[in-house]
Amino acid sequence: MYIPTFDDVLAAHDRIAPYVHKTPVLTSSTIDAMAGAKLFFKCENLQKAGAFKARGASNAVFGLSDADAARGVATHSSGNHGLCLSYAAGRRGIPCTVVMPRTAPQAKKDAVRGYGGRVVECEPSTSSREAVFAEVVAESGAEFVHPYNDPRVIAGQGTCSRELASQVPDLDAVIAPIGGGGMVSGTCLTLSNIAPKVKIYAAEPAQADDAARSFRAGHIIADDAPETVADGLKVPLKDLTWHFVQRHVTDILTVSEEEIVEAMKLMWKRMKIIVEPSSAVPLAAILRNPDVFRGKRVGVVITGGNVDLDKLPWMKG
Amino acid sequence: MYIPTFDDVLAAHDRIAPYVHKTPVLTSSTIDAMAGAKLFFKCENLQKAGAFKARGASNAVFGLSDADAARGVATHSSGNHGLCLSYAAGRRGIPCTVVMPRTAPQAKKDAVRGYGGRVVECEPSTSSREAVFAEVVAESGAEFVHPYNDPRVIAGQGTCSRELASQVPDLDAVIAPIGGGGMVSGTCLTLSNIAPKVKIYAAEPAQADDAARSFRAGHIIADDAPETVADGLKVPLKDLTWHFVQRHVTDILTVSEEEIVEAMKLMWKRMKIIVEPSSAVPLAAILRNPDVFRGKRVGVVITGGNVDLDKLPWMKG
Repeated sequence: MYIPTFDDVLAAHDRIAPYVHKTPVLTSSTIDAMAGAKLFFKCENLQKAGAFKARGASNAVFGLSDADAARGVATHSSGNHGLCLSYAAGRRGIPCTVVMPRTAPQAKKDAVRGYGGRVVECEPSTSSREAVFAEVVAESGAEFVHPYNDPRVIAGQGTCSRELASQVPDLDAVIAPIGGGGMVSGTCLTLSNIAPKVKIYAAEPAQADDAARSFRAGHIIADDAPETVADGLKVPLKDLTWHFVQRHVTDILTVSEEEIVEAMKLMWKRMKIIVEPSSAVPLAAILRNPDVFRGKRVGVVITGGNVDLDKLPWMKG
Repeated sequence: MYIPTFDDVLAAHDRIAPYVHKTPVLTSSTIDAMAGAKLFFKCENLQKAGAFKARGASNAVFGLSDADAARGVATHSSGNHGLCLSYAAGRRGIPCTVVMPRTAPQAKKDAVRGYGGRVVECEPSTSSREAVFAEVVAESGAEFVHPYNDPRVIAGQGTCSRELASQVPDLDAVIAPIGGGGMVSGTCLTLSNIAPKVKIYAAEPAQADDAARSFRAGHIIADDAPETVADGLKVPLKDLTWHFVQRHVTDILTVSEEEIVEAMKLMWKRMKIIVEPSSAVPLAAILRNPDVFRGKRVGVVITGGNVDLDKLPWMKG
């Protein structure tokens, strides 16, 4: 297992700069008043392909030799990594295959295809996903870019908090959603090097709380196919992300489905930005745990904005 | 009639700086490809109170003497000016009354009250609005801040294109929606002084095309209560805005209701920002008139993001 270093983050930042946005940081005085804290929202929903995963995917794709790149890339992904890998592969002009659960949002499948990638469907469980994926790789010889348990991907995600630290001085804490732990690991990698006093929190749906349970148990606990509106956060930690989470995360906070949808709608209404449910989990955790964040300057990573606009979680039927 | 000057814009910018955001400029390579142009979206939907009108309203409110301010401010508004005036009055701690059509979106009425203002309802016609408003002013002695036909308001709106010009070099054109013409007038005032080669376009719903008809006729034509999904654009030009429009606007382009909703959904989907229907009118006009904008660098003013999230125009029933 190769553990990426901060030098890898710096190299990634140079490599991906032409293909990703330096995303803005937004604030809301209304939400600050509700939270009793000063929140700085790092808007990766405004990133290329609508998610921070464009960073890690671009780093993996553009780091390949021409010979490896020619065989294309492949991944399995509950959504954003797949379409971001398709985006990056499209920018390099190489093939991309994404294995996706058949239950993934139609908007995400369409987006993978929109960037030129091929979608192969599997059942909505980690085990089915991995089995179908093995077939795809055997057949194509494509380079596997794991959604998070990959040093190239983690180094790419680490460029986000490097930007954030340059945009907002004197942060007390940063909070990001945790699914497989790629963004949290990149945040740990970068901040432990450039701003080691900043506390790092992760936020997770209570209905998919495997990372929180892993954190308390001291070893990885994986659930197969939990159900949550935050569809980007269903996957388990793996060895590389666990390495960073167990060393650098202060706490993992969990929130209910209702709290996620309420925080999501609050962000749409007050901040005028489209965030997907996973991206609302950190704000939900802040509002649920005011004592943890009161009076603090907190960076909040908004991880993505890919939703099906015809099926919003507050619209019944 | 006092015609505001560029010095008024500069004074406004200093006066309102503590109360408004310098909003970001966003781009979308997908939408650029569709338009065949390079579009720079000035995101006033991310402005305080969710609309550019926070600029003009703040300039009017903070320019009042203490004695005048103590009697409060009042206005009539189809929406964003009302809530932005309420926002600015709240920041100064003075009373604010807003006369609104009873058919205005509930979200906008709630927002006026949320910032501490008082809502008085009228019928959805310009004539009813003006009659009810006269009663309000007679009773309270409040300072009238017209939504657009007011030099303080126009000077405040002019700060938006001053920012845009500093954020994006070498623009060929700027396009903004036109209702009463406050934003367009502010844009004309500023750009005719600092970037006179930039062409200024206005965009308007075909179902509320009084400004386009006025522009062609050479005099103001006012419609009473036209119907359009772009509810911020129903009001007519007045003498002060007509002054700027007739002198500095290159053309006024009109679009259908379907084109507005389609452009709005496109912006939500690809840019991950919440824009109200009025704000989608310029993009709809660009997509409808590719020959006008092809190969150009175009500033597109996104005027606001105040929508009722439970009633989106692409959701039927």
